[in-house]
Amino acid sequence: METDRLKRQLTFLMECDKLKKILRRTVLMDASRRENDAEHSWHFALMASTLLEYAGTPGLNECKILRMALLHDLVEIYAGDTFAYDLKGHEDKKDRETSAADKLFSLLPKDQENEFRRLWEEFDAMETPEAQYAAAIDRFQPFLHNYITEGHTWKEGNVHSGQVYERMEILRYAMPELWPAVDYMIQDSIHRGFLLP
Amino acid sequence: METDRLKRQLTFLMECDKLKKILRRTVLMDASRRENDAEHSWHFALMASTLLEYAGTPGLNECKILRMALLHDLVEIYAGDTFAYDLKGHEDKKDRETSAADKLFSLLPKDQENEFRRLWEEFDAMETPEAQYAAAIDRFQPFLHNYITEGHTWKEGNVHSGQVYERMEILRYAMPELWPAVDYMIQDSIHRGFLLP
Repeated sequence: METDRLKRQLTFLMECDKLKKILRRTVLMDASRRENDAEHSWHFALMASTLLEYAGTPGLNECKILRMALLHDLVEIYAGDTFAYDLKGHEDKKDRETSAADKLFSLLPKDQENEFRRLWEEFDAMETPEAQYAAAIDRFQPFLHNYITEGHTWKEGNVHSGQVYERMEILRYAMPELWPAVDYMIQDSIHRGFLLP
Repeated sequence: METDRLKRQLTFLMECDKLKKILRRTVLMDASRRENDAEHSWHFALMASTLLEYAGTPGLNECKILRMALLHDLVEIYAGDTFAYDLKGHEDKKDRETSAADKLFSLLPKDQENEFRRLWEEFDAMETPEAQYAAAIDRFQPFLHNYITEGHTWKEGNVHSGQVYERMEILRYAMPELWPAVDYMIQDSIHRGFLLP
C-alpha cells in the first residue's frame, strides 16, 4: 500500500465531513429545520436511482449519475450555498466554485483529483445526458420540499412562478414524463398561494 | 405515465426524508453535534467510491455498492438506530428492522419494492463481495469519526479495543490493504487513552 496515497484520500474524506455543516435555504419536509448539503446530496442520489425510468434518454450510466450526486455540492464547503433565486450570488458563483474545486480536489491523489474534477465539471456543464438528468433531479428534490412545505422557501424569497418555471425548464426534456406532475404542482402552488403568480 | 406508479415513488421518497432526523451515536468530525443517518449514508457512499481500489475482491459492481449505501439504513426510520456496541439493542434488531422494511419498501411499486428489498437483504447478509465491501465501509466511516474525535463515542459507551477489533474484523478480508492503517489507529487510540485496552 502506498501510504501517501491513502493519507491523501483520508484527508479528502475528512475534509468532506464539512459538507454536513453547509446549510441550504430548503427546509426538511416537516419544516423543522434547514437541510444541509450532505442530506440533500443523499436524497438527490436516492431520488436519481428511484426515478431513473423517467429519464428522457434511455440507457444512462447510473453509477456516473450517483457519483455526480455525491460530489456535486462539495465545492460549497468553501464557496457556500448560493440560493437558486439569488441573482447577486450567482454573479460570482462560478469563480468561487472553481477556486473551491481547485482547493478541495487537489487533496486527492492526482488521478482521482482529475477524475472527481471531471465528473463535477461534467455535472456543472449540463451537456451530457447524465449531467442533464442529474441537474433535473438536483432541481426536483428542493422543488418537492417546497411543494410539501407549502412553499416555505418560495415565500421567504418572494419567488414567483415564472422563476420556478425557468429553473425547472430542464425537466421538460431531461424527464419529460415527469413534467405534467411538475406543472400540476406549480399550478397548484399558485392556486393555494404558496407561490406568486 | 402511470400516475399511481409515480405517486407511490414520490410517497416513498418523501417518507425517506425522515432519515435526516434519525440520530446516530457518532458525532461530526468537529464533535459539534451528532450525525444523522442521511449524512452517514452520503459519507459512506462517497467513501465507498473513493476507496474502491482497496476492496479485497477486484471488479466489484460500484453502482450496486452505492445503491446499498443509499438505502442500507432506511429501515431505521421506523426501527431507530441501534448503537454498534449495544448488546441489548441487538437482541431484537433483526425483528424490528424486518418489520420496518416491510412497511417502508411496500410504499414503492411492486417491482421496485422487490428490488430495494433484495439490495437491503444482500447488504444485511454480508455474503456477496459487494455487501462485504459495503459493510466494511459502513464500519470504517464511524471508526474514522471516532478516531478523529479522540474516541468520543467509544468513551461515552466505555468501549474497549477488543470490541472494536471484533467490529472491524471484516476489514481484514474485505479491505486487506487498509487493515494496517486500521490496526495502527486502534493501537494509537489505546495508547492515547481514547479506547480502553
